[in-house]
Amino acid sequence: MSSSELLLSRRDLAFLLHDWLDVTRLTERPRYAEHSRETFDAVLDLAARVAAERFAPHNRAADTSEPTVDSGRVRTIPQVKAALDAFADTGLFAATLDESVGGMQLPHAVAAAAFAWFQAANVGTSAYPFLTLGNANLLLAHGSPEQVDTWVRPMVEGRFFGTMCLSEPQAGSSLADLTTRAEPQDDGTYRITGTKMWISAGDHELAENIVHLVLARIPGGPPGVQGLSLFVVPKVLLDDDGALGPRNDVVLVGLNHKLGYRGATNTLLNFGEGVHRPYGRAGAVGYLVGQPHRGLALMFHMMNEARIGIGAGATALGYTGYLKSVAYARQRPQGRPVTDKDPTTPQVPIVAHPDVRRMLLAQKSYVEGALALVLYCGRLLDEEKTAPAEADRERAHLLLELLTPIAKSWPSQWCLAANDLAIQVHGGYGYTRDYDVEQHWRDNRLNAIHEGTHGIQALDLLGRKVTMRDGAALELLLEAMRATVDRAWKADGFAADLAGRLGTAVDRIAVVTRRLWATGDPELALANASVYLEAVGHVVIAWLWLEQVLAVDASKSPADEFSAGKRAAARYFYRWELPKVGPQFDLLESLDRTTLDMRESWF
Amino acid sequence: MSSSELLLSRRDLAFLLHDWLDVTRLTERPRYAEHSRETFDAVLDLAARVAAERFAPHNRAADTSEPTVDSGRVRTIPQVKAALDAFADTGLFAATLDESVGGMQLPHAVAAAAFAWFQAANVGTSAYPFLTLGNANLLLAHGSPEQVDTWVRPMVEGRFFGTMCLSEPQAGSSLADLTTRAEPQDDGTYRITGTKMWISAGDHELAENIVHLVLARIPGGPPGVQGLSLFVVPKVLLDDDGALGPRNDVVLVGLNHKLGYRGATNTLLNFGEGVHRPYGRAGAVGYLVGQPHRGLALMFHMMNEARIGIGAGATALGYTGYLKSVAYARQRPQGRPVTDKDPTTPQVPIVAHPDVRRMLLAQKSYVEGALALVLYCGRLLDEEKTAPAEADRERAHLLLELLTPIAKSWPSQWCLAANDLAIQVHGGYGYTRDYDVEQHWRDNRLNAIHEGTHGIQALDLLGRKVTMRDGAALELLLEAMRATVDRAWKADGFAADLAGRLGTAVDRIAVVTRRLWATGDPELALANASVYLEAVGHVVIAWLWLEQVLAVDASKSPADEFSAGKRAAARYFYRWELPKVGPQFDLLESLDRTTLDMRESWF
Repeated sequence: MSSSELLLSRRDLAFLLHDWLDVTRLTERPRYAEHSRETFDAVLDLAARVAAERFAPHNRAADTSEPTVDSGRVRTIPQVKAALDAFADTGLFAATLDESVGGMQLPHAVAAAAFAWFQAANVGTSAYPFLTLGNANLLLAHGSPEQVDTWVRPMVEGRFFGTMCLSEPQAGSSLADLTTRAEPQDDGTYRITGTKMWISAGDHELAENIVHLVLARIPGGPPGVQGLSLFVVPKVLLDDDGALGPRNDVVLVGLNHKLGYRGATNTLLNFGEGVHRPYGRAGAVGYLVGQPHRGLALMFHMMNEARIGIGAGATALGYTGYLKSVAYARQRPQGRPVTDKDPTTPQVPIVAHPDVRRMLLAQKSYVEGALALVLYCGRLLDEEKTAPAEADRERAHLLLELLTPIAKSWPSQWCLAANDLAIQVHGGYGYTRDYDVEQHWRDNRLNAIHEGTHGIQALDLLGRKVTMRDGAALELLLEAMRATVDRAWKADGFAADLAGRLGTAVDRIAVVTRRLWATGDPELALANASVYLEAVGHVVIAWLWLEQVLAVDASKSPADEFSAGKRAAARYFYRWELPKVGPQFDLLESLDRTTLDMRESWF
Repeated sequence: MSSSELLLSRRDLAFLLHDWLDVTRLTERPRYAEHSRETFDAVLDLAARVAAERFAPHNRAADTSEPTVDSGRVRTIPQVKAALDAFADTGLFAATLDESVGGMQLPHAVAAAAFAWFQAANVGTSAYPFLTLGNANLLLAHGSPEQVDTWVRPMVEGRFFGTMCLSEPQAGSSLADLTTRAEPQDDGTYRITGTKMWISAGDHELAENIVHLVLARIPGGPPGVQGLSLFVVPKVLLDDDGALGPRNDVVLVGLNHKLGYRGATNTLLNFGEGVHRPYGRAGAVGYLVGQPHRGLALMFHMMNEARIGIGAGATALGYTGYLKSVAYARQRPQGRPVTDKDPTTPQVPIVAHPDVRRMLLAQKSYVEGALALVLYCGRLLDEEKTAPAEADRERAHLLLELLTPIAKSWPSQWCLAANDLAIQVHGGYGYTRDYDVEQHWRDNRLNAIHEGTHGIQALDLLGRKVTMRDGAALELLLEAMRATVDRAWKADGFAADLAGRLGTAVDRIAVVTRRLWATGDPELALANASVYLEAVGHVVIAWLWLEQVLAVDASKSPADEFSAGKRAAARYFYRWELPKVGPQFDLLESLDRTTLDMRESWF
């Protein structure tokens, strides 16, 4: 077995991208006309190979020997730089970007699948290109032509890396409370002063330069999020000809020492502390992106894709843990069937025990369900950007808005649960650092926190996305799910049985959502938003499992073992997982006030 | 706030031990006649102080600087030895043991509460006395008077430490497959050869000697677990006068490097490798405990108490994480109520957000519910050993047999979930090693694995405990729960409401258990044993929450904030948690075959 086979399943990706999402049809559109199934497959094969050969081997070393600071300079084990150079050679820094800047113009669904190989192999090292891609993407959409030339091109080439600088020590979830200042200068630039916390890839020597995208306030603007503007603040300023010039006044205060994701630096940065004095004056030089006071909207352009990318990373960690625990369960002998009381018979591999199969089936249903969700979101992004009809683009946009908090949160929760089960399948060995699964579990724990916590995603879903445009986005989702139910009714008994269960759950989403907002009391409606997020997430995954069942039924090999595995995982999800939403919807429908009524002094 | 206030709640312990379990009544019995409420409280106060002053301060250091091996000798940071010396000074190595060997004869419920302070403060360092206490307890019950004199007395004094050596590299859950051999010698001793894996506290220089309790086979015995015998195998042999003599042939092969619990060594040991040749011959000298081929039954004497102790440790880790996240939530300002759209108002502490209160209430309901369970089991142990009437001792024995897998598994699952929520409450800070909660989460992950995995506990509950003596143990549990329901019916509206919900769940246990065993097919009945374990566990905790509500109602201060907190947590558990058992019982009742029918080749 090549090591890439323990990262993701090439067969599952082919199934999802081709048999289900039919990404090759996208090549009929002008943007993707240069592509074909062959180019898509070649990209996936390349990603699998480079991930296995260059990213996976140092995953443990990057965790054990995390970056350190030596005289203000960050030291990283050399394998990280070598891996990122190999990544740059694949051209994938340019995956989805426009040809005009040297991009590959890959569909997002394909690019997400390609990148997932790297996330599965080494989520820490993958953080550098992850942030760089998001940064480049934002600047390409919203930067001036000059900014694109100056900053995006070197990022596409893998020479500069990017960051996003939102949080401050006193303000993470509450962006309204950011205090970093941006003073306008006569030459049109700004001088930035403030402290940014939790900045991933915030300092290192893995690239020639670091392009920070920083949220800050121009004095005189409105308070709260309406007064935030977005700036490019490079670590090293450039000369007029684009060559590296003086150090900008961006200072590494310290590295955060984390539970996981240790291979990627996570930093506390001071802007404008006066340590460096570019052009003879204190303050970090920043360049405004877009209009003043529109920073948050622009940043959300990056953050929405980043959130789906976080979900993809969580999925990839869950997926590799699943594959490793299947491999372990097949080769580890232990015990006998409960009906065999003869201790002289040989031990059986643990996959023979139903409880181990439970733990493997649960993982399979979580990770393959999550992968379907993040690739579906990638496909929606492609629709949003390239569907010929305006109405289709709008539909994709709305669905994507609604699904983004789910695509971020559901994999972060359930693929972490998958990693927990992967440890359990390994028994005592899984608790040691000799096996990969404990690190996947630690790494994955971050995903429910960064880029907006679970609770923030819940408020986003129920407080913003469900209500936007009079509920139009939710209506589209319910329609899409009901259309699947209708198709499945006409299929064989198995799919029809699932359809009945899904239909009931879909109806409950509609009823419960109306009931919550009929209160006219946002505090009450939103009090249990996390439960709503989790319940709707489970129904969405159930929907995508039914979609997968219909796709295997319609595939060229509906009777093979891959198809049987898909049906078994769907059955598992519908019998073991979907029923969990019943009590959740009951709780929401009861407008439960337990958390609202709890007083601080009672803890 | 003293640091012990972030470990456990002294008030909650007083409530559970006195207001609820009325442990002072035990002093009416001869065994506990020397004790009083004052001596119990003094022990708890002493434990809280020593745990906070000597165990908690090096919890992080012991994790960061885990033990290493240098020329075959284990090096441990000096704080561990200092803490264990302080522990020995408390006298708690002798907590529950007989006065005849220098023991304190504390009730188990009180001793468990006292020891929980150390587990909360530093579960790694606590592993040494944990294993020593279990070992001494077993030998006191089953060893010869000479063995008690030789091995138990030095353990009571904290001079020797103990271990339990069951697992081997090829056999962990499957004890039937142990292969370590014990060859009888002419002098009545045995020579032991074999390899033991996952031996906690298996080597160190923290005590003068290490007393291993080893399961091994005497040649000619029956295969499987029926052929296992138990031996004392000391690291260092003793001269006839009890002084340390030659090294026994027990060799440290290596330390396991774990995800958590890092302060305690976990070892691979070779017995009889020939490195040491005591009395001129290879083979580790062992002394038979009890009868040949009765080893497993004896070891279970230790293991049953150890399993409840594991549950107590899981609870303690959950409890301290809960208290730390409450403290954090009270002082961390972030954001505003959802109804306050004015960004110029001050930020509120995060405990003001309902979603944060949800995470705190969930933790409270888990950790206080788990603590009630493990102390209840301690109380049952006291009944089993000292109840004046034979029938009461038998009742306690049966209930304890049934509750042991639940007391081991439920806290391991749900107090880990509590630690996960504690991280989430801390946000990004919780993901760093600057805060304690990430370590608690890592440490706690072991508890579902060691001393019998979750799946093993599930088979024990449904396959053995539920069916023992024609279901007598389960019948006793159902009776006990129904008695609480009856008492609560007569109480106020709140308790009566909970009683109705609990009564329904209790009835379902009875129906579902009958249905599973009515199949006459053990493979089918046991296929989903883990779900059964989890569902019954949730009902048991719900029962103990109702017990707590009745106890606060009957207490001297039913209207204070502590009582209000208990009622709120009970309400949370009944509205948010107990309903989860509905789909679990449905699944069990349907005799679901999903995991049974899954084929290995479909993964």
